Amino acid sequence: MIIDALQCGTFTPEVLRDLRDGGLGCVTVTCGFWEGTLESLDSLGRWRDLMHECADVALLATCAEHLIEAQQSNRIAVVLGFQNSNLLEGRIRLVDLFADLGVRQIQLTYNNQNELGGSCYETDDSGLARFGREVIREMNRCGILIDLSHVGNRTSLDAIEYSMKPVAISHANPHSLFPHVRNKTDDVLKALAANGGVIGLATYRNITGDYYCGTVEAWTEMVARTVDLVGIDHVGIGTDRSYDSGPDFLDW
Amino acid sequence: MIIDALQCGTFTPEVLRDLRDGGLGCVTVTCGFWEGTLESLDSLGRWRDLMHECADVALLATCAEHLIEAQQSNRIAVVLGFQNSNLLEGRIRLVDLFADLGVRQIQLTYNNQNELGGSCYETDDSGLARFGREVIREMNRCGILIDLSHVGNRTSLDAIEYSMKPVAISHANPHSLFPHVRNKTDDVLKALAANGGVIGLATYRNITGDYYCGTVEAWTEMVARTVDLVGIDHVGIGTDRSYDSGPDFLDW
Repeated sequence: MIIDALQCGTFTPEVLRDLRDGGLGCVTVTCGFWEGTLESLDSLGRWRDLMHECADVALLATCAEHLIEAQQSNRIAVVLGFQNSNLLEGRIRLVDLFADLGVRQIQLTYNNQNELGGSCYETDDSGLARFGREVIREMNRCGILIDLSHVGNRTSLDAIEYSMKPVAISHANPHSLFPHVRNKTDDVLKALAANGGVIGLATYRNITGDYYCGTVEAWTEMVARTVDLVGIDHVGIGTDRSYDSGPDFLDW
Repeated sequence: MIIDALQCGTFTPEVLRDLRDGGLGCVTVTCGFWEGTLESLDSLGRWRDLMHECADVALLATCAEHLIEAQQSNRIAVVLGFQNSNLLEGRIRLVDLFADLGVRQIQLTYNNQNELGGSCYETDDSGLARFGREVIREMNRCGILIDLSHVGNRTSLDAIEYSMKPVAISHANPHSLFPHVRNKTDDVLKALAANGGVIGLATYRNITGDYYCGTVEAWTEMVARTVDLVGIDHVGIGTDRSYDSGPDFLDW
């Protein structure tokens, strides 16, 4: 099954149908970035409407079995995710409530430092902060995947060590293949793999670079080199491209 | 099984244990009055903590079977309710989300008019407003009981007519037995019964009066007279008294 671990495009019934028809088995969608609790609930409400409208094409997935169920009924599985922890508004109890509402992936920080830890764009990454430790343990307990894609390297290493379960870098590339603060250094990738996690490689040109983004062959070369780095069990895809905004690859 | 349809007291592990030991089978608790969405989520989070702490004594009930399950395991069933619709902050989609979080009873208005309708304390009751109609249909769909205890009589009549399912007046008394704006006129009670609903009679002195609140015999006289008015299938209890604030009855 082909799984896209991160997709922040605008989703419509037509997009979901195209993805299903194109053979994608599952996609983790971005329900929010900067939104607080109330706006995040709004977003989940809109997603419910869309899933209701597209019940013949898509299935909301909250456990692994739902991916199989989606496949068997010729639908695409949709996993609800957030690219930031603002939906919690600093409240540890909301992790459990959002888990009940179907959220299965949360990124600890987006591009700015927050109360959980440091982002990849900060000059000084604080490392995993006090509330970040609490949230990680609660996410572990509630079955929400920890995403580190935009998280700083120091905070990422802390989070990987602190998490009792495997974590994900849903959409980034190896820094050693294309140097960019959004990409992950080898020590982070090796720690990720050691804890059983996975990196979803991105097609976003800014963090893939002209060479690896130039042809399918070049991108798959990046995949192969990442597999050499961390092992085949720990590499996936997380395209980080809006399906509706046109191809980013020259040849895709 | 003895069910208290409305209780706004402060709940602690000791209170839940006392209620269970005292033979109460189920209680609908008040999770909020004026609180908006975020504070209502906070309240649900605190209730989760309490229910987790009291798992040997209490069971969160979200369907009728849970009341039986609670009884069979010697626990009290707890139903989560709100005495106002402020938790929705004007968003129709939040009804479904709060239902998923276990909420099973919402009062359309507390003591002030809101976007759903008029309260019993308003000089002019607007009747059921536009958003109120939408919320009623959505509550019907999501399985949340509509409570009219503090709702104005005109809005109550509209709501009873508009609801596709039976509604409740969880804690009030007949106006014809003790005149008070919080109590319900005979036309409202008869309409309530005709749609299959139930009134939970209150022990709150302000709306019960000195006579009916004076002795157990007098209060049960009020129960009997209410049964004569609407039929035995439509009368229950909704004490509206804090269990922790001392007895309101002289003799209880």
